[in-house]
Order: sequence, then structure tokens, then C-alpha cells
Amino acid sequence: MSGNTFGTLFRITTWGESHGKGVGVVVDGCPPQIPLDETIIQTMMDRRRPGGSVASTNRKEPDKAVILSGVFEGMTTGTPIMIMIHNKDADSSAYKPYADIFRPGHGDITYQAKYGIRDWRGGGRSSARETAGRVAGGAVAKAILDREKISICAYTVELGGVRAQKRDLSVIDSNPFYCPDAAAALEMEQRVLEVKEQGDSVGGIVEIAAKGVPRGLGEPVFDKLDAELAKALMSIGAVKGVEIGAGFEAARKLGSENNDPITPEGFLSNHSGGILAGISNGDNIVMRVAVKPIPSIAIEQKTIDRLGSPASISIKGRHDISAIPRINVVCEAMVSLVLADHLLRNLSINVPEYFR
Amino acid sequence: MSGNTFGTLFRITTWGESHGKGVGVVVDGCPPQIPLDETIIQTMMDRRRPGGSVASTNRKEPDKAVILSGVFEGMTTGTPIMIMIHNKDADSSAYKPYADIFRPGHGDITYQAKYGIRDWRGGGRSSARETAGRVAGGAVAKAILDREKISICAYTVELGGVRAQKRDLSVIDSNPFYCPDAAAALEMEQRVLEVKEQGDSVGGIVEIAAKGVPRGLGEPVFDKLDAELAKALMSIGAVKGVEIGAGFEAARKLGSENNDPITPEGFLSNHSGGILAGISNGDNIVMRVAVKPIPSIAIEQKTIDRLGSPASISIKGRHDISAIPRINVVCEAMVSLVLADHLLRNLSINVPEYFR
Amino acid sequence: MSGNTFGTLFRITTWGESHGKGVGVVVDGCPPQIPLDETIIQTMMDRRRPGGSVASTNRKEPDKAVILSGVFEGMTTGTPIMIMIHNKDADSSAYKPYADIFRPGHGDITYQAKYGIRDWRGGGRSSARETAGRVAGGAVAKAILDREKISICAYTVELGGVRAQKRDLSVIDSNPFYCPDAAAALEMEQRVLEVKEQGDSVGGIVEIAAKGVPRGLGEPVFDKLDAELAKALMSIGAVKGVEIGAGFEAARKLGSENNDPITPEGFLSNHSGGILAGISNGDNIVMRVAVKPIPSIAIEQKTIDRLGSPASISIKGRHDISAIPRINVVCEAMVSLVLADHLLRNLSINVPEYFR
Amino acid sequence: MSGNTFGTLFRITTWGESHGKGVGVVVDGCPPQIPLDETIIQTMMDRRRPGGSVASTNRKEPDKAVILSGVFEGMTTGTPIMIMIHNKDADSSAYKPYADIFRPGHGDITYQAKYGIRDWRGGGRSSARETAGRVAGGAVAKAILDREKISICAYTVELGGVRAQKRDLSVIDSNPFYCPDAAAALEMEQRVLEVKEQGDSVGGIVEIAAKGVPRGLGEPVFDKLDAELAKALMSIGAVKGVEIGAGFEAARKLGSENNDPITPEGFLSNHSGGILAGISNGDNIVMRVAVKPIPSIAIEQKTIDRLGSPASISIKGRHDISAIPRINVVCEAMVSLVLADHLLRNLSINVPEYFR
Repeated sequence: MSGNTFGTLFRITTWGESHGKGVGVVVDGCPPQIPLDETIIQTMMDRRRPGGSVASTNRKEPDKAVILSGVFEGMTTGTPIMIMIHNKDADSSAYKPYADIFRPGHGDITYQAKYGIRDWRGGGRSSARETAGRVAGGAVAKAILDREKISICAYTVELGGVRAQKRDLSVIDSNPFYCPDAAAALEMEQRVLEVKEQGDSVGGIVEIAAKGVPRGLGEPVFDKLDAELAKALMSIGAVKGVEIGAGFEAARKLGSENNDPITPEGFLSNHSGGILAGISNGDNIVMRVAVKPIPSIAIEQKTIDRLGSPASISIKGRHDISAIPRINVVCEAMVSLVLADHLLRNLSINVPEYFR
Repeated sequence: MSGNTFGTLFRITTWGESHGKGVGVVVDGCPPQIPLDETIIQTMMDRRRPGGSVASTNRKEPDKAVILSGVFEGMTTGTPIMIMIHNKDADSSAYKPYADIFRPGHGDITYQAKYGIRDWRGGGRSSARETAGRVAGGAVAKAILDREKISICAYTVELGGVRAQKRDLSVIDSNPFYCPDAAAALEMEQRVLEVKEQGDSVGGIVEIAAKGVPRGLGEPVFDKLDAELAKALMSIGAVKGVEIGAGFEAARKLGSENNDPITPEGFLSNHSGGILAGISNGDNIVMRVAVKPIPSIAIEQKTIDRLGSPASISIKGRHDISAIPRINVVCEAMVSLVLADHLLRNLSINVPEYFR
Repeated sequence: MSGNTFGTLFRITTWGESHGKGVGVVVDGCPPQIPLDETIIQTMMDRRRPGGSVASTNRKEPDKAVILSGVFEGMTTGTPIMIMIHNKDADSSAYKPYADIFRPGHGDITYQAKYGIRDWRGGGRSSARETAGRVAGGAVAKAILDREKISICAYTVELGGVRAQKRDLSVIDSNPFYCPDAAAALEMEQRVLEVKEQGDSVGGIVEIAAKGVPRGLGEPVFDKLDAELAKALMSIGAVKGVEIGAGFEAARKLGSENNDPITPEGFLSNHSGGILAGISNGDNIVMRVAVKPIPSIAIEQKTIDRLGSPASISIKGRHDISAIPRINVVCEAMVSLVLADHLLRNLSINVPEYFR
Repeated sequence: MSGNTFGTLFRITTWGESHGKGVGVVVDGCPPQIPLDETIIQTMMDRRRPGGSVASTNRKEPDKAVILSGVFEGMTTGTPIMIMIHNKDADSSAYKPYADIFRPGHGDITYQAKYGIRDWRGGGRSSARETAGRVAGGAVAKAILDREKISICAYTVELGGVRAQKRDLSVIDSNPFYCPDAAAALEMEQRVLEVKEQGDSVGGIVEIAAKGVPRGLGEPVFDKLDAELAKALMSIGAVKGVEIGAGFEAARKLGSENNDPITPEGFLSNHSGGILAGISNGDNIVMRVAVKPIPSIAIEQKTIDRLGSPASISIKGRHDISAIPRINVVCEAMVSLVLADHLLRNLSINVPEYFR
């Protein structure tokens, strides 16, 4: 049990259910004297908001983040930072039919099996709303990374079968899918509308790149940087795969192709994704995650009810067609949390006045 | 720091370098009264041994596991189980040239950057030899899983670009690559010999399936079963990608294709890979890992030395052409560790006499 | 860092400052299906309230606990339980003079040294108000212990030099100090009034007894039950000593006096305090803590300001004369947290269907 | 479960039973480039050896510590340091009679209750021999503290009822009890011989002082420095009480007596024991532990056997009369472990180049 805490030194604990009183996060281990206020957090929260693209519902979720502790006169104090997001717009009656029936592809059946009880309103704890706490915590992590000139960017490289053919990061803010290929973005929009029409949903692939990460982060042999990133990203609800650098393509390469030659000016390629033997090598850290299609679809599906009897289900209402692009900022948040934690963990080695 | 411990309740700590006095593992949290002896462990260790296929070196590494504590009269006692494997056949002189030069694709450069010192003999801690401790620990985990009728099997589904076209697990012990497609196995052998001739190396994909896993394992929202498996597998040196169930293919499916319909007799498909919302659903747990090609190749490569000057390197000697199939048992070990740990963690919820 | 989380499986994370927006606790790892509501928590919170005795201030701190997550239809769901207590009656102006001066006996000087910043309003995070989160979390732990028929009681055995001569637990609710000796309680009241008159403060000793604890709790060799209890109790602000069973008196006994003889009916004495080799033996667990006098006193004291210049200080206002008896329920809470956690930890060993 | 690991960043895991193949420790999280060899460790191990005083048995336990990993060319490498002490002189036949009977004051009955199985040879895991791993790990911690000019000293202030009347640390190496009062040491020797004659045993009190500890160590609110020290010390088998600074005497003081006045030159007294609000204040850290008398005595005692039938027991053979003075170095080791861990933990806050 106790799976709601993430990190070793920079550590978050999230809480809250979709239709309860709110969701939130306690950030513990944030160093003191980091400038922080609600605006910094809200900027990141806003990117998680629905309504930005045709793939997302029009539900109103203002997701107003409130800092309740740990900040004094605009600075962190080294004590726990509690950030709460009150729930609004939560009419649970639409979920009443699903109180006694398991939605395919959702955690309804497994939560019931594990706990013998579940808050079915809006998906309860297994709702994507849970990620609001992650993003708020990630915003604090990002404040630390900013100081170190580390930047993290998540962008959509595939959606509904449409692949980005290039990585032009300058255009990701000009299209609703944060896609680094403007033409592909238009196709994605087309594809999403088409699928929406059918009452179906789509998946895709998000790539996350971290720039400016110093060499030396990661703690072999189990808390390797790539291992920790894999856990962080796979813990996001819709994610079914994680790869670093060349990833699954590396399985098809020869050693002579996959190795990154080293020169005095740096690596000549980055198939490693910036991590060697679990430790950052100073190059960009590049990852991709596979995002499954949203399981809530209007098309009728077979299922069973709580008594085990066969049933059928068709999920109506305001649901996203894809977790992309709202999931992108969640990926950024999770990567930020890992990097901030490992920055702090690495301090215990790397400090001249103490140990060199 | 302190990244050499894995697990929450069933927990291993590994230690040792490739050419030091030995490698080993301390298993803490193993329940008492589990039958255990060195034979049980050795059986699993032997599958990690080189020499089984053309992809592996002929080095002699008997990897004899010795139990030094925690077992009394053939049974675990609930106290820490220390298992040691003495190192043999460790002539470090072959590595002397690499003391001051960084092998591409290896951790030489990152260990040097992080610690400012490294045991270069045989790769030191970043050697694949480190996995011997994982396998020994995994054998103890497997003894627990055996009791619960949970079985885990890792097999090769792609090697050097050759893909298995079927999943006939009955043939995996009849070919050197643990490949579930006998014809593909022959092609794989051909491909490996070809690449060996060129002084190069190959990567591949290993699939791991766990059968008999009860429903309810996994601790949302961060210690979800898939998140923990992802970390476990990505922490293995050569692994660059992890996917669960449909994995990256899920990104290309529609919701109506990807959702697994539920019937009173069970799920009609298993795109989820046996995990919903981070909790096992009773179906088989299926994962795949991308294994990069062995970075030690005879072909000359560009690199730098410790002073940052350009250099070139050609790595001769007895090296594997692929981490597959020796890595397969390591994957099984890591999955076993996660499942044993989560079996124990789940006990704190699920017990009638205490809480129901 | 990250020192605001306590426990392994049953785990609390507290947050909040004395004069911030509130204080609270996230309880993670609480088993599902435990009946819980705000009334259960409030009952325990109320015992922490000031105003019950002459030793405590008359400040109004209603300490209204609100459950924000993790409970559905009156039952825990296995997800994190967030409990918040809004701050009220917080006029920080009285603390303004202490923003730049260090109060002797307080954490002002050490928080400043460690973090380089501190929320001086009401003592910030180092205020006794922080314990409200512990008590709320302890109330949840107590709900678990209740099921197991484990009861915990803290009572005052010494205050301002006045010692209880007996352990008559039937009278502890009839006097303001929870003292098991009615006559001593009267003397204590006298003593406290006397000291209050002088602008000074007093310390004392609280004994905590846990009844009904099953045999087998505690995880050697470091997480022994007594070691965990010692940490739990010593982490309370005013506590300077912890002893188990005979405690410091055991140091003066012979082995033949201190050993507890074992009979088929049980132990003939309880010098061990119910714990042998770090594991509960089925007898009552008995501990005592030394509580230092409240450092905030009206008597003038020497100190320095933030620039290191000499200063003098006399702390006026509504301050407790002793942390006793308000600290008693905090002791109960901490002991409850340890026992609930170890009940859950022990489940991973002791379960027939899995391992016997 | 998993109670055999101690520490957060500087972390030890101990293993081994009294009459098994050996005992040992894995130290994880030791920073690289710390000079370390077996001589450094052996020096500390030798102080744990029996035979130094009339209070200890004459058994031969050379306790030869061997480093098996983590050190390269005389320096730590940042990888796990495994230190093993092979067991010798282990004739278990003397313990055969106690295989089915519970020795009062020992863990026999609780280990049996918890695990349903126990290695009764020499006390198994609950033997004081387990502390050899702690001392070896503590020696590594001390190597870190040495760099920071932090020194730790444990000395006997009470034994068998005889109290040291002064703290003359210059004499502690000149008497077998490490007593800072030469005259009291003679009385202690007398007292021990007297009790030995009676087949009985004695307890006592050890004081530990740490000098040179920088301000700022300790992580409120649960991992306060005093809380962590209390756990560390209480986890030692014979310890039944821990106090910091004035400790239990603080309970009898007035606030005006107990507060340590602050001046530009430092604190005018040290009733706090060098810790305020859980954070070190730069003054000496002073603790005391109550050590119970050795439970193995020749005098006949009542007990029961494994079937619950009444029995009587008289424990003959070579047993210490008191855990003092052999326990002293174990106390030093535990305090060293806590301080080394908190030095590293504090680095994540306090570093100009990163956060100020």
C-alpha cells in the first residue's frame, strides 16, 4: 500500500477523487528560497485544462490551484508545500449508471477487486483528474529546474495513426496538439473529428525532451535515471509503453549503428537518449510514451455488472477523444519531478566542500 | 544516492563489481518458512551463464551461488538472505587499455563524470555481471510465486531484425534463443553468425508473460503494477524500451479496438496486458522490452580519453554478440521481484481476519 | 530532506504552519472498508484543544477537522485520506518582535540556520500546532486498532516535580491532567498555578500504555517496535527522552530482577514493556516520555538577534505553562500510527492462505 | 517486513546469524573518493571484541572484516560496499538445549511467535553478534565524519548502580569500562566481579557525545535529528531508554532553568543536547542510553517450552556480565550512521551553487 508518494528527496504525495471535494498534492523536500507563487503553478495547470483542441471535452474545469503552506513572502521555506485544487462542476448523476457496471478499459473492475469498494463518481481516484496534483507538484519541480537552466518539452509525434514527419519545436504552440509538424497537425485534427463522429477514440505518441540536464544524474543500479523516468511515465493512466532514445528501434540496429561516437565536442548522435548506464551524459534526454485511446466511447461494448452478469454499455457525455494533448503537460510534470529529485540526490555526491 | 535497493516489502540490495571479489544480493522481507536451498537458486543462475548460444561468449563463469544467511534447515527464517557469487576467471589486464578511454555505448564516461573515480576492471559495477545478484534475488522471489502458482516466462520475439511469427512456448527450450518460433530461431542463429563475422553486434526484443497473477496487485497512483514493472525492466543495462500489453501498438488503435470486452468468463482480448488502472485484472501480464545491441564491438569507433582528447577504439576479446538470450532470465528475475513484492504489499489490504 | 512523512505501509504526511491557511495530513495506506467520519476524528482532535487545564492557554482553537478525500459513504476506500484543519484566530502581529530575534529553547535559530528563511508567524512549522495533523492521522490509525481491540492510553505520571504515586486509570478523565493519581493531580494544579505566577513553565512525564497488542509486531533489526516507537515519540517537539518498560531503571537492576519470568499463563512481570528483541510479546506495551518545560516564558532571557548581536527577551501572551496535558493525545496518536503500520507490515508474514 | 536497512541516503543493510556462515553489511550511498581500507574498519571492530574487561566473556571472536566490493585502489567508488565478517568458534551444541525452550529476556519467544521458525544456534539473528555489521557500517560512516572533523565518543556513566561522578574523557581509554571517572571505574570492576560470582548480570548507562556537528542537520517534522538518533540507539538489543541533553531531568526543570541562553559566543548551557526543534544547533550532541542487564544468567529462572509447558532454565557458559563496555562502540556506530546520513541529506538544501 501507500503508493501515492513519488520521489526520494523531492517528493510528492497526491490525494483526491474526481467528484470529491478536491484534489491536491503535498510537495516535501523542496529546497528553501525558491521563488514560488500561485501564478507559476497556474500557468502549468492551465495547459492541462480541457477545451484546447477538438480532442478534448468542453467541460469547464478551471483547476484553480491554491497554495496552503510552505511558501512565505513569495519564497519556499523548505517545509511541505500543500497545493489544493477544489473540485467544481461535478454532477455525479451521469455516473450513477456505472456504479454497478464495469466500464471496459477502465479501472472499475480492478478497483472493485482490490478494495471491495470504490468511489464510482467520475471515476473516483482512477480518474484522469488525479493528474492535476501531479501537474501542480511538477510546477514546483520546474521552478527548481528553471534555476538550473533545464527545460522540458512534451510534444505529440503521432495521433490516430498520423505521424509527425519532422521535429520543428517552433510550431508546437501554434497548433492545438503541440505537434512539431504543422501539416501533420492538420491531418490529426481531421482524423480526430472523423473518429469523434463514429463515437470512437484514438491513441498516439508523445515525445518528451529535456535540455540542459547536467551529466551525472541517476543512481545505479536500480534508480537509474531511465528506470525512474520509465516508472514516472508509465504511472500515468493512459500510458502503455515508454522508450528512451532510439528505444524499440535500437532493437533493430547493429552495435556500430546504435553506439553514439564520442568526440571532444560531444556525442555525434543520440541513440542513447542522453543516458548511459543509467546516468545522464549531458546530451538531451529524449523519451517517448505510447498513449492508449480513451476507453470511454459511445460505441456499445460488452461488459459485466458487479454480480458478474453480462451487460452492455455505451458511454455518452462529454469525454475526450484522446488523452493527447492534455496528457502532454502531465508527461512534462512527471519528467520534471524525476529530474528535480535526482538533482537533489546527486548533490549528496558531488559537492567539493564536503567530499572532494 | 543509495540506488542499489529494489522493492518495498520484498526487497533486494545488490553489490559487487565485475572483477572484484564477488557479486551478491541481500534479500530482505522474504516471508519465513519458504523452502529454499542453493540448488533452487543455481537452477536460475545457470540460465544466465554464457555459452548457451552463438550470441554469447565462451567465457567460463560458473556463477556458483552460496547462501550465507537467512536459511535454516532448508527453510527461510524471515531474516535477511545473503547470497554470494564469488568472481572467477577475472583477468583484468585485458581492460587495462580502457582505464583511460571511454568505450562508446558504455557507462565509462558517465561513471567517471558522476563519481570522479571508477573501477574500470571488467566494467566494474556497470558490467552485466551485476545482474547475477538480481537473478539470485529473483530466484528467491520465484520460490514465493511458485507457492501461489504464478509462473513467469521470458522468450525472444525478435533478434537482429528477425521476428518470431508465432508464440509457441513449447519450443522455447529447444532452441538457444528461447524463441517461440523454431523457424525464426534458425534465422536468428544465421543472423548472429553473420554479424559476428563483421565484428558487430545485434539487439532484439524479449517478451515476458506472467500467468496466474491474482487480481488486485499494484498500488495506485505511482506504484501501479505497470509502473513498477517498467522501472524494474528499464533498470536492466541493455533495455531501452518497455511496453505492456498492446504497448506502442495501442497508440495506433481505436478505443473500440483496444478496449478488452468483459464477459462472465473473462476478458475477450488482452490489449491491456493484464493491468487496468495499474492493478492486475487476473489475465496474463504481458510485457516486451527493447534490448539494444551490445556496445562492445570489434569495429573501430570514435571516442575520447579521460583528458578529453580524441581517440579511436576497437574492442576485441570474448564478448557477447547480443545480450539476448542471457538477458531473458534477468527479465524474469526482475518481474518476479516486482510480483513478489506486490503480493506482500497487497496482503496489507486484503485479509478477512483483519479487515473484512 | 522530505522528513514530513512517517510510516512504511500506513503512512502519514503532514503539512502546514501555525499562522498559515491551515494544517493537515494525508493518510496513505489505510485499508479500505474502515468506518470513518469527521466525528471520529474530531473526538480525538478535541483532546488536543487548549483550555482544559490551568496549564494551557485559553486561546480558542476549535481545530475543526474536515475530510477532503479517501472516504466514500462513511467508509475508507483505500485511497489517500486528506484531512484539513483550517487555521483561525491567527493574529501574527504578536510575533512580529520575534521575526528578527531567536527565542531560547525554540527552533528559531536552527530553522534560520538550516533554511536561511523562516515563517516566524506563530512559530511557523515548528509550532506545536503542527501536531494537529499528527492527531488527525492518529485518529485514522486508531480506527484500525479499534477493530483489533487494541487500546492506547496516555496519562501524566509527573508534572512540575509532582509524581503520581499510583496508576489508577479510572480517574484520569476526572482531572485536567489525565493523572492516574487524583491526589497528585491536585498537587500538580497547585504547582502549575505557582509557576504561572512566576512567569515560568514546567515539564513532566507522560506514560503511554497499549493494551491488546498481538504478539509478533516489529521488524528487526532496525525497525524493531521499540525503535520505531522511540522515533515516533521523540519526534514530538517537547520530548527529550523515551523509555520502554523499566527503561532507565533497568540500568540499575540485576538480570535476575529485570528478566520477566515466563509461565503458561503469561509473563510474571513486565520490565520489558511488552517488547522482546524488538517484537511485541503480547503483554502491555508501556512507554514513558520526558516532556521539557515550555520554552516561551515571561521571565527575561538572554539571546541574540539575526545579526548575532546580544539581546534580551521576555515572552508575553497566552502560552501554555506545560505541554502536558495537551501533548498526551499527541503521544497516543504517534503510538497509534506505529502500531497500525506494524499491524499492516506484519500481515505480509503471517497469513495462512499465502504462506503457511 | 524489510527491517534490516537503516538510513535514507547513507544506508546500511545488515545480514547474518550468530552461528551461520558469517555476518555482514552492505553500505549503500557512501560518497566516492573517501579513503577506506580494512584497517580503518578493523580498528573499530576490535573495540567490539570480547575480552577487554571482566564484564565480557573470554570467547575468541577475531571479527576479521573483509571488504568485498565498493573500494578501488584504497578509495570508495560510490558503489555498494560489502563488508563481511566470517563466523568462527561457533559450536552450536551448547545451544541445543535452548532449541525448544524460551530463554527469559531474550527474543526466543517473540521470534518463534512472529516467524514460526527460528535459528536457535547462538541466538540466531537476535544475537548481539548482529551488531558486528552495524559497527563495520559505522566505521564507513566515521570515515565521512572524520573529513568533516566530527568526532563521536561513547563512555560509561553508570554500571551496576555505580555512577561516574565526573566526565574526564582523558581517562576513558585507561580503564576497561571506558568510564570518564577513574575511581568509579574501579568500583564498577568490583561490582561486576561480585555479581559474576552470584551468576547474575548488571545493566548501566552509556553517554554518547558528538562534537563538531555543524548546525542544520535534521529533517523535521518526523526525521528530526533527535528522533532518528532515538530510533538508531533504541534499535540496539539491550537498550531500553534514550534521552537527549537534559533528558528525563528536563521534566523536572523550570523553563527558566532548562532553556539554554544564547549569546554571540554560543549557548551558555546545553540542556537541549545540541538539538533544537529537531535540528542541530552547533553545540555538542549529547545522548544517554539505558542498557539492561544481560538476560543470560546462571541463576535459575521460570520459563516455558515451545509446547507451552512450564520449565526452568539456568544458562551456563561464557556470557558477558554486562553489554557494557562492548556496546559502547555499537552506540558510536549508530550515532555515526545517523550523522553521516543527515550530512548527506542536508546537502540537498544547503548548497550555494545550486540554490542560493
